[in-house]
Amino acid sequence: MPAEPRVATFRLAIEYDGSGFAGWQVQRSERTVQGEVEAALQRLSGAPVRIAGAGRTDAGCHAAGQVASVTLRTRLAADRLRMALNAHLPADVRVVEAAEVAESFHARFRAMRRAYRYLIVRPPSAIHRGRAWARATRADAASLNAAVRPLLGAHDFTSFSRQGADEASPRCRVTRARWRGSRGSLRFDIEADRFLYTMVRRVVSTVVRAAESGGGARAVQAILDARSRRAAAPPAPSHGLYLMRVRYPGVGWVPKERMNVVP
Amino acid sequence: MPAEPRVATFRLAIEYDGSGFAGWQVQRSERTVQGEVEAALQRLSGAPVRIAGAGRTDAGCHAAGQVASVTLRTRLAADRLRMALNAHLPADVRVVEAAEVAESFHARFRAMRRAYRYLIVRPPSAIHRGRAWARATRADAASLNAAVRPLLGAHDFTSFSRQGADEASPRCRVTRARWRGSRGSLRFDIEADRFLYTMVRRVVSTVVRAAESGGGARAVQAILDARSRRAAAPPAPSHGLYLMRVRYPGVGWVPKERMNVVP
Repeated sequence: MPAEPRVATFRLAIEYDGSGFAGWQVQRSERTVQGEVEAALQRLSGAPVRIAGAGRTDAGCHAAGQVASVTLRTRLAADRLRMALNAHLPADVRVVEAAEVAESFHARFRAMRRAYRYLIVRPPSAIHRGRAWARATRADAASLNAAVRPLLGAHDFTSFSRQGADEASPRCRVTRARWRGSRGSLRFDIEADRFLYTMVRRVVSTVVRAAESGGGARAVQAILDARSRRAAAPPAPSHGLYLMRVRYPGVGWVPKERMNVVP
Repeated sequence: MPAEPRVATFRLAIEYDGSGFAGWQVQRSERTVQGEVEAALQRLSGAPVRIAGAGRTDAGCHAAGQVASVTLRTRLAADRLRMALNAHLPADVRVVEAAEVAESFHARFRAMRRAYRYLIVRPPSAIHRGRAWARATRADAASLNAAVRPLLGAHDFTSFSRQGADEASPRCRVTRARWRGSRGSLRFDIEADRFLYTMVRRVVSTVVRAAESGGGARAVQAILDARSRRAAAPPAPSHGLYLMRVRYPGVGWVPKERMNVVP
């Protein structure tokens, strides 16, 4: 016999191919990931539902592990809810994990760390179009790692933010920033307590330019110190960016297991 | 001053996302990779052109390194021809290398070895839909490597062929067969002098089934020895399969450099 309906809060880990979306956040008359998940939840619960996402990814940006919280009236246990949602979602969005959590859980406000990955492949590329930045570069992982070093730690990241973005503070603590791979295929992993809007993409373009020009760490340090939006390079394209996972106190990284899904 | 037009033969390495194609081989009224490349060549050269591909990949199957040969009248050097072709090709096909070769070169008949990769990811998956087989499996790389071992070497691969396929001989020499990765994301690399139609996909499904059931190498050996199409598992889906590169005498692997482009 099915359980009685109750009001419950869930933490959802969501994977999506951002190619067909105007980003995460709901917009009137645009297809968004949040909009699709809310529509699927409404079809299941019969009532309008609002969800909160840990990171408001841009149009074209992907996620292997976006995290969202939702409170709704349902009789379903977490994994049943996950499967029912997947049956109602389009193929470019999938709920990969679900857990029932305390009502006080909030995917954005409780997040203590976010991990993003950025992919660069050698042009031309057919397989990775829309999935990576197709850009020829002479920079290798060692020179990129040297150039990114000044960004580790807590800093004012105004130089890597977008003008007019309405942020509480320009201060972020970067706890990991690592390049791997060869010139044919580079992968950048970055983690911080929070990120400013377009920050990862501006870090990528600026660090690549600094490594290529020979300016290296000194050039990146000067751009960071300038606290000026004119100092950094224009942001790298959003379609190379993946929100990988989000860390919560007492929970650890979410999703817990799916770390191999991105090239 | 541009060079005089001359009749020249080229070796092209071609990358494609197979999602939007009815396979490699030209078909009346279907969109195929060969058809797109021939149309682009005709627009460049002004005359109908026929190309030969090293492997006739199925609908949905991808390539990081299909190899084709073509003879045509042109004033372009190889790399210029490559760039001009990319300007005329749709975004899901890209010529990644081009070289002018002796008239006697033939991409299919001269090929001495082909390398394919097959990808399996844990379901559900949004990012890899159409790019990998989304299949939950308890088998790990070690048990898959044990199960595939009987296929190494020269054998009659009738059990892994498709009924009615018009092949010269069922004999293939497999020189490499290796699984890597974790349960969340498995990658299979296989190389042979030649492959029968659907052979890689039947090897994948059969080896996965044998590793899961505990039958392992003994089960695969029995299926190989049976020389019967009813013995093997139905082929794994074509969208997990990538033609990676092709080896030629005196040339080595083609393409020469692009080995990191597939997840």
